[in-house]
Amino acid sequence: MSSEPEIQPPSTETPDESGEKISKKAAKKEAAKLEKMRRRQEQEEAARKTASLSLEDESSSRNYGDVTLTELQSTADPKAGKWREAVEGKEWTNVSELVEEIAGSEVLIRGRVHTNRPVSSKLGFVILRQSGFTVQCVVTESKERNVSVNMVKFLKQLSGESFVDVIGVVVLPKEPLTGTTQQVEIQVRKVYCVNSALQKLPLNVEDAARSEADIQAGKPGANQDTRLNNRVIDLRTPANQAIFRIQCHVQIAFREFLLSKGFLEIHTPKLIAGSSEGGAAVFRLEYKGQPACLAQSPQLHKQMAICGDLERVFEVGAVYRAEDSFTHRHLCEFIGLDVEMAIHKHYSEVMDIVGELFPFIFTKLEERCSKELEAIRKQYPFQPLKFLPKTLTIPFAEGIQMLKEAGVEADPLGDLNTEVERKLGQLVLEKYNTEFYILHRYPSAVRPFYTMPCADDSNYSNSFDVFIRGEEIISGAQRVHDPELLKEQAIRFGIDVDTIKTYIDSFRYGAPPHGGFGVGLERVVMLFCGLNNIRKTSLFPRDPLRLAP
Amino acid sequence: MSSEPEIQPPSTETPDESGEKISKKAAKKEAAKLEKMRRRQEQEEAARKTASLSLEDESSSRNYGDVTLTELQSTADPKAGKWREAVEGKEWTNVSELVEEIAGSEVLIRGRVHTNRPVSSKLGFVILRQSGFTVQCVVTESKERNVSVNMVKFLKQLSGESFVDVIGVVVLPKEPLTGTTQQVEIQVRKVYCVNSALQKLPLNVEDAARSEADIQAGKPGANQDTRLNNRVIDLRTPANQAIFRIQCHVQIAFREFLLSKGFLEIHTPKLIAGSSEGGAAVFRLEYKGQPACLAQSPQLHKQMAICGDLERVFEVGAVYRAEDSFTHRHLCEFIGLDVEMAIHKHYSEVMDIVGELFPFIFTKLEERCSKELEAIRKQYPFQPLKFLPKTLTIPFAEGIQMLKEAGVEADPLGDLNTEVERKLGQLVLEKYNTEFYILHRYPSAVRPFYTMPCADDSNYSNSFDVFIRGEEIISGAQRVHDPELLKEQAIRFGIDVDTIKTYIDSFRYGAPPHGGFGVGLERVVMLFCGLNNIRKTSLFPRDPLRLAP
Repeated sequence: MSSEPEIQPPSTETPDESGEKISKKAAKKEAAKLEKMRRRQEQEEAARKTASLSLEDESSSRNYGDVTLTELQSTADPKAGKWREAVEGKEWTNVSELVEEIAGSEVLIRGRVHTNRPVSSKLGFVILRQSGFTVQCVVTESKERNVSVNMVKFLKQLSGESFVDVIGVVVLPKEPLTGTTQQVEIQVRKVYCVNSALQKLPLNVEDAARSEADIQAGKPGANQDTRLNNRVIDLRTPANQAIFRIQCHVQIAFREFLLSKGFLEIHTPKLIAGSSEGGAAVFRLEYKGQPACLAQSPQLHKQMAICGDLERVFEVGAVYRAEDSFTHRHLCEFIGLDVEMAIHKHYSEVMDIVGELFPFIFTKLEERCSKELEAIRKQYPFQPLKFLPKTLTIPFAEGIQMLKEAGVEADPLGDLNTEVERKLGQLVLEKYNTEFYILHRYPSAVRPFYTMPCADDSNYSNSFDVFIRGEEIISGAQRVHDPELLKEQAIRFGIDVDTIKTYIDSFRYGAPPHGGFGVGLERVVMLFCGLNNIRKTSLFPRDPLRLAP
Repeated sequence: MSSEPEIQPPSTETPDESGEKISKKAAKKEAAKLEKMRRRQEQEEAARKTASLSLEDESSSRNYGDVTLTELQSTADPKAGKWREAVEGKEWTNVSELVEEIAGSEVLIRGRVHTNRPVSSKLGFVILRQSGFTVQCVVTESKERNVSVNMVKFLKQLSGESFVDVIGVVVLPKEPLTGTTQQVEIQVRKVYCVNSALQKLPLNVEDAARSEADIQAGKPGANQDTRLNNRVIDLRTPANQAIFRIQCHVQIAFREFLLSKGFLEIHTPKLIAGSSEGGAAVFRLEYKGQPACLAQSPQLHKQMAICGDLERVFEVGAVYRAEDSFTHRHLCEFIGLDVEMAIHKHYSEVMDIVGELFPFIFTKLEERCSKELEAIRKQYPFQPLKFLPKTLTIPFAEGIQMLKEAGVEADPLGDLNTEVERKLGQLVLEKYNTEFYILHRYPSAVRPFYTMPCADDSNYSNSFDVFIRGEEIISGAQRVHDPELLKEQAIRFGIDVDTIKTYIDSFRYGAPPHGGFGVGLERVVMLFCGLNNIRKTSLFPRDPLRLAP
């Protein structure tokens, strides 16, 4: 990758929660600057291209060059151009497949220019990157192999992040290679630029991939906003490639477990009448002349699915929160993993599912994503999550007592704040050696209106939160399935019951006792990997200040 | 189930596309009527409960009754009530598990009152339904078994759709049972009403489950709006239970195939700046002071994920269309199954994935969902979909020619209308014996701005549509990855390029040739099962007139 620090000046800001610091004005200014820079670069590139390379014989000049757009428009004509002719009848080999066993064979590979290191007018090295794997390509001027000086020149001017097709021979290197993942080199015979990146990028992948330790040691980093503003470049770092593979695997394991337990995957509407579950933090819009909002969670509809006899359901879908939360753990749009199930007699049936599901997910991640976890750890060091095969469950009152004994006062009928939650997590870790546990029987006052109060004391409720590394990640509960009590609680919570009439009425047509829970996908990934900001685990994050890219 | 036709008068309207006919005024009137009816019912029920059953000895009276709310609040106290005591230490058996092999054993089951047929003061039959399975429960007055006349009376007054717990003995019936799925009966020892449904429901499950043929023969049906207004009841029909299991299985197979081909599941934001892909049909909202809209598809962001080196991605997520389309095949919110992938040289690489993926899904559905398909067929008869193991691919121009030869004129540079599409589907079926095929090389004028034109003729594009049973279901194409051409095409399509600047800029930092496709989950289920309305395959459908339940 080309490394021009003047574009992205070495920032003293570390990649942290500084997301909210940058104002819109600064963003505009930065955009204008980039636009100007881009125009200049386009002019330079055009100039470069017209300054044609010196004359050479026809046959060697066909071995390199820019692929024309016509050739890339899926032309069926093998004579459409140099590249099209060169790749006719050939298959591409993945960079990961370039191993010692195939030394001597000719391959066609496609990758991005990761680094481009000219040595002389007759020798050049380009490292190509594909799917996180890298291989060194060597081009040496040679009459015999039809490699001209101009081809070396062509290779040298390739900008970082450009897509290149190389046809070459796999050779064993003289010395072990330290700069690439693959332990073979490619002796380049032909090279074509499939798509050219700007010479000067607004973000340097190497800077974005820098660890905190390296930045501390003086190497250039990139601040979080620059990274997020240029997410399509930022996503190319090894850690980011790994994060989104892990996110995918969390869902795979989530589904695998629940489907095996008889759950059905459903999709509930996000466009809903009224005001979702109440509160001001909803995005409102006009729906064909009716007031509508975006669902704050699939809560109401997943319960209605239970009333519709789907018995055990789950959903993976977008959740919208219009809250002005500028923390490391809040997003305005995120992916909710939601579960709802009929129960026979106790909300422990729901906690049993949670308590089995997450250790299952964690175990599968460790088994299936060891390379990805390693890639993340390299940039963001973290300790593996400590969890028990049988999940620890602690009553809320016991948690309060543990805190009290440690000298921390907490309201036994109130909620725990983030700091106290962290403290409790520490105490639990010391006492039980786990960073994953369930705290249940929460005070009723701090739970939503649809939460079932405890039978013996209505100040408490049949509800629970689940913690990872001291942070609340999952909320769950038994729900009120009795329409009169539900209505009464909704009124007590200040909710306009007319706006949730269809929901309340659902319980008049026969409803089973039921419960469920919800968890944010991005938080699971963030806390499992010990990351410090949820924006790192959302592909294109949305927060109160960020609606793009 | 109680069957009171006066509540839902036998409708002459068949379950069809009449969704759009009912006005809001009529809906309000109906709601008021239901509210009044509900209040009357509540009064009647209260009266019924206070008119206490005649005295009987204490021990037999503990064998039946309404479960109190306290007992259902997850109480740990086994003495909290009659029901709580009766179920202590017992496990529930699923109705599907009630088979001849366990005759003689005592079981605890939970189900809805499906039908309630009193015979005499000493004998009653109740059919319980759970997960689509039904079993007959017989209660016979007997001193010896501690079953009182009052218990028979209690059983008789249970309303349809109420949830009931029965403890009883599995017995073999004297004659084969025709009215239930299970071929054993339960001799009731204890019966408790867990949750009582209104005596008179706004929709009768049996009416909602009626086939067209039965309705034609004079049996009561239920019109589509009544069904959708009372979706939590409507969902309980065998066909609906099956439809949402099949929907789940479409996704399972979709993921299974794509994950095996190296695709990664991603989530793109639905809240986006600007106006999505252009056009008026977007839902607009205010996002923290900025104008925003709901994404019409994940198009722009899934392409950006490709620019971010995720290489092969797919998404299962909500898609929003504010179009005033009142057809059998349009929804304002639906689930998009989207795929995007880097390609090497031809958009046929994308068609190859489509052409393999869908036969894979169809085959898996037939293998895994035969019972569900049977349940749907019972209410909505349909012929199995005809498809080839290797998907047929026809150029657009050839389709036009086939139509011409059949006497149908169609503009070779225009789009096909629904009628012509159906006609072509018929011709293809006759010629190739398949109802699933790909039509490609569409005229450029009828495709979105990001579609790559053909190399040899820019009037045509590297795009395709896929048809099932003569209806277009999937659209796909190679995309323009060249930023200048992309910008030029956007302008030509009248799109304000400023609103999609981050998207266009994504291609300046090195972008591979790529393509993809999108399909609506609801349409796949609808057309595979030959259903006549997409509202049947959406859990809680949203159309221009429907924002609830």
